[in-house]
This record gives sequence, C-alpha cells and structure tokens, in this order.
Amino acid sequence: MKETNRQIVLASRPQGKVSSANFRLVESAVPEVKEGQVLVRNHFLSVDPYMRGRMDDSKSYAASQELDAVMGGGTVGVVLESRNPAFKTGQSVVGMLGWQLYGISDGSTLRVIDTTHIPMPAYLGVVGMPGATAWYGLNQIIAPKAGQTVVVSAASGAVGSVVGQLASRHGCRAVGIAGGEEKCRAVVEEFGFDACVDYKAGNLYKDLKAATPEGIDGLFENVGGDCFDSALARMNPFGRVALCGLIAGYDGQEIALRNVRSILMNRLLVKGFIVSDHLEMWPKALGEIGMLVATGALKYRETVAQGLEAAPEAFMGLLSGRNFGKQVVKLI
Amino acid sequence: MKETNRQIVLASRPQGKVSSANFRLVESAVPEVKEGQVLVRNHFLSVDPYMRGRMDDSKSYAASQELDAVMGGGTVGVVLESRNPAFKTGQSVVGMLGWQLYGISDGSTLRVIDTTHIPMPAYLGVVGMPGATAWYGLNQIIAPKAGQTVVVSAASGAVGSVVGQLASRHGCRAVGIAGGEEKCRAVVEEFGFDACVDYKAGNLYKDLKAATPEGIDGLFENVGGDCFDSALARMNPFGRVALCGLIAGYDGQEIALRNVRSILMNRLLVKGFIVSDHLEMWPKALGEIGMLVATGALKYRETVAQGLEAAPEAFMGLLSGRNFGKQVVKLI
Repeated sequence: MKETNRQIVLASRPQGKVSSANFRLVESAVPEVKEGQVLVRNHFLSVDPYMRGRMDDSKSYAASQELDAVMGGGTVGVVLESRNPAFKTGQSVVGMLGWQLYGISDGSTLRVIDTTHIPMPAYLGVVGMPGATAWYGLNQIIAPKAGQTVVVSAASGAVGSVVGQLASRHGCRAVGIAGGEEKCRAVVEEFGFDACVDYKAGNLYKDLKAATPEGIDGLFENVGGDCFDSALARMNPFGRVALCGLIAGYDGQEIALRNVRSILMNRLLVKGFIVSDHLEMWPKALGEIGMLVATGALKYRETVAQGLEAAPEAFMGLLSGRNFGKQVVKLI
Repeated sequence: MKETNRQIVLASRPQGKVSSANFRLVESAVPEVKEGQVLVRNHFLSVDPYMRGRMDDSKSYAASQELDAVMGGGTVGVVLESRNPAFKTGQSVVGMLGWQLYGISDGSTLRVIDTTHIPMPAYLGVVGMPGATAWYGLNQIIAPKAGQTVVVSAASGAVGSVVGQLASRHGCRAVGIAGGEEKCRAVVEEFGFDACVDYKAGNLYKDLKAATPEGIDGLFENVGGDCFDSALARMNPFGRVALCGLIAGYDGQEIALRNVRSILMNRLLVKGFIVSDHLEMWPKALGEIGMLVATGALKYRETVAQGLEAAPEAFMGLLSGRNFGKQVVKLI
C-alpha cells in the first residue's frame, strides 16, 4: 500500500540568506499513473548551488522556481509502476523529480541506471550533473596541457574534487582552494591534489602564490569574489577561466572583480557555462567518469542528510560550505 | 645635407596621469647606414593607448619602455638611404621607428606601402594596427551574425570607428559609446552607426538600454569601468566580449567590474586580446580594410598634431579623449 506523498515546496523567496521559513512541507495523494507515465519512489535527492539562483525572481540561467511548487532538482529512485514501455517496475532511474517522496514522469527526463558497480547516489554527483560539469569545464574550456597548473575553487565539493582529479590525470599540477584545514587536508590526501589553499586562513593571495609558483594556466571558478580575484592575479598569458559558479555572491553579496586588467594583459579566455547547455557531451563525459569510478581510480565523497525534512537544512549547509563532497538527501 | 636627428625619450615614469615632464627632447647625429640597414625619414608617427602601459615599470602585455630610450611606436616615412636589397631610396615604408625624425632599421619590421590610393598616415590607423585590431576582435572573437547588436566603446576612436562600420557591413545593429555630443553625432552621421550613447551625459546604463532594445550580442570593449559594467548588464545569452583596452584604468584608476554574474548567467565569452599576437591575420584583415578604404566604403578620421614636439601633448590628449579618430603626429 502506498503511503501519502510528502513534498517540500518553495513557501517564499529569500531576502538575502536562505532560511527554513522559505520552505514548507506539504502532504498530498500519490498521483495515479496515466498512459505513458512512470511512477518513481525517490531514494535520494540532490541539493545543488544552482538552486539558490532559481529561488530568486530575477533573471538567472536556470528558470525561476515557482512559489508553492515542489522544489525542483535531481533524484534517483526505483520505478514503482510503469505505463511507459521504456521503463519496467523495479528499475533504478535518475531524473529531475524534485524534493518529494514520489514523482511522476512521462519518461522524457528519466534514464535507467546500472547500480551494479556504481551506487545509486553517485548518479547525482560524480557520475551525474556535477561530474559532467567538471568534465566539460576542464576539457572543453580549460583544455589543459601536461605540466600546466590548474586551480579550482570549492575544491572539496562535488564538482571541484572531480576537476582536480581529472587535471592530475592530464599531467597537470592541481591546486585547490577550500575552506578549513580539514577540507584542505582531504583535498590533498584523498583526492590527490598537489596543494590546497585554505581561504579561511586569511592569506588567500599569498598562500595561492606560494602554491602556484609557475602561475595559473587554467582556473575552474566556482566561488567568485576574493577567490576569483586572487586567482586572476596569478594567471599566466593565454590562461583559460571556466566560470562555473559564483557561490560567494548567491545571497546578493558584492563580488566585484578588481583584477580586470589581467584579462586584457594576459589575453585570458573567460567563459561562463552551464552544463545543461551541453547535453550532447554528457554520454562521453559520464562514460569516462563512470569507468574511473567503477574501477576506483576516481575518488568522491558524499555528505548524506537523512529524510525529506532534512533537505532545507542540507541545502543551507551547502551554501555556507558545511558539506564535504556531494550533498544528497536520503529518503528511504 | 641631413639635419640633426631629434628624438623624444622617456624621461621618467608617470605617477598616475602622464605629464609633459615624463618626456624629454634630445638631439643626436643621424646614424650611419651599415650593411643591411635602411635609413628612414619619418613623416608621421603614431600615438596609441597601449603606449601608456609601456610607460609603467609593471607587467603589461607590451614590454616596458626603457627610461632614456626613444619612445617606441609606429611610423610611416620615406627611405632616404638603403644598404638592404629589399628597400630602395624613395620608397614609402611603415615601421616601428618611434618618436624621432630619422630611424634606422635592419628592415625586418619595415614594410613597403603603396600610397597611390591610400594616404600615408592611414597606414598608422585604419589600414594599420588599429584597423587590424578592429577586424580581429570583431571577426575572430565577436563573430557577429546579421541582425545581432554589437556595441563598441570609444566608438569615435581609431579602432572603434572601424568596428562599428564592419559590424554594419555584417548586417548588425552597431551602437557606439563615446564622450560628448559632437563625437556621438559623427559616430552616427559619419560612420553610420545605428546609435551612439554619450557617456558624459550621465545616464549611461539607461541610455545604453534604450539604444539596445534587443540586448547586446557582441561587445568590443576599449574602455572598462562603467562602460564595461553597463554593457555587461545588457548582454544576451551566449554573448561575446572582445576585451581590447581598458583606457579608463590606464592611470591606475579603479575599474572594478560589478556585473560578474552576467558572465555566468548569460554564459558569456570574454576574451582579452592584443593584435600583435595574431600577425598571421594582418594581411587578410588589412587587405579587406584597404580595399574598403580605397573605394571610399569605409570612413575614417584623423587628428593630426604638427611637429615632433607636439607628440607628448597629442598622446596625453588621446588618453583623455580629446582626439577624434586616429591621432597621428606629422613630422614634415
């Protein structure tokens, strides 16, 4: 017998920092499955920095999240009932069913996954959107050569940790920026970066300079503000910047760039991107990463929150850097 | 009989704004022509914004100008004496002989020019480095499609005026930013831009918004600061920015960018460039532009200062926007 569906909806738009008052838990009946549809019991849901932009009413690369609608987002789960010939009961699927226990889909955004060698939540992280993001920005924008230095901010996060490991595999010097000694230690010891700078230690530019004695050839920027500015000041001629996120400014903080001259003088390429513009590259990206994960060659970490009710808190923690690696919420 | 050579050398590095005290006029003998060398009587010399960067001792894309050495820069003139088989007495040549009446060269940077249909000073402007700069940034970075909107700052200048005319020829809406009513009027009436915004009128963002009702697809940025920031706020998704200069910041002024979010949200490409990195494109660029100039299809303006002694003042005027079109100094 099906339980009642539970969902988290956007109750109000944040004024600056997100608070739990911006969310509301609601109950509803589990929907009937119509012809062509699939009913999925979600096992894990994803919380990601891009969701912050969607909570505002302003123009963002992601369409605005509607008030009183279920919070959107990536999910993995199991097919409970299918009236769509492409899916069978019991199959594991990844999709975009949002912050709820049960989701219904016409199948167009669902994909059957193989959980034999790769566990289910990894499809929300290293073998999902964050992994594809890391792969795209590094390979298609930074395009590093062996011996070059690649810097990535938010280096212990779902995207950053993959960027550094892929850069190392290209023969690059991989340097991370992360918050706190513990994260920095793991970035080096667990993910194999050559160095990691702790932005909370208060000497960001000086420490970054010491960690990049040959300058920076590729910057994978997730944070913005001081991180971005300090890295710009270390860029080598003809360096490339993959601008993936500006988490330092998601609550409306000032994130002005001062070292604009470096873009001109060093003839830099700065490219903003969002991986959903490049779906055609996902099979190649996730094929490569999936192989590395399945064979243990690529490490990843997850922070798992328990229960649907924990999703808002997990999301707020992500925005202030409390997570380590991919933040997911376990629903079952 | 040859007169004495006169030269302007860099006497001291500017602290902030350039002043005439930074230059010194010196006299010296006209050098003897050795085997393989060419002696040129300069007729015109070029003053360009990039020279400001070279006057500082700091890292710039152009190597630092040495103290007490002749100010470097582009020149056109006539061969007086040649001991190099590639050049004959009486030929007109363009080169990099600097701020002096006579220059000597091994010929490697000299190029014979045809002044039948194109006057000599145009080889320092529209059919020279500034023209090649406009062509490269527009065609190789912005790569505009018909119907798109292209904005260029310093639109009445040697580079900007060419950018807008080439953009119009691509079927684009060409919008300039320039300082003062008179310049703006000429940008529209003489160079055929669709609109020009006067940044001195005090409503830059509002006026730029009105002039770009469909947003901006390509930005050719020569100025930086408020110009750049206002334009960033009008960029369309997948817009391209050719960052060519930051004249608003050449004396050390604050030129921070606030609209960094636009680069991410609109997935912009921002590319710093300097045309001397792309010498392989010059023949194609200047071939096209030369044809347009010779047939009268491309308009240009020059501001001509008279006499070597006038070069510092002409240069300072250029940095504060007193010139219109290409600033040259006539030496003969």
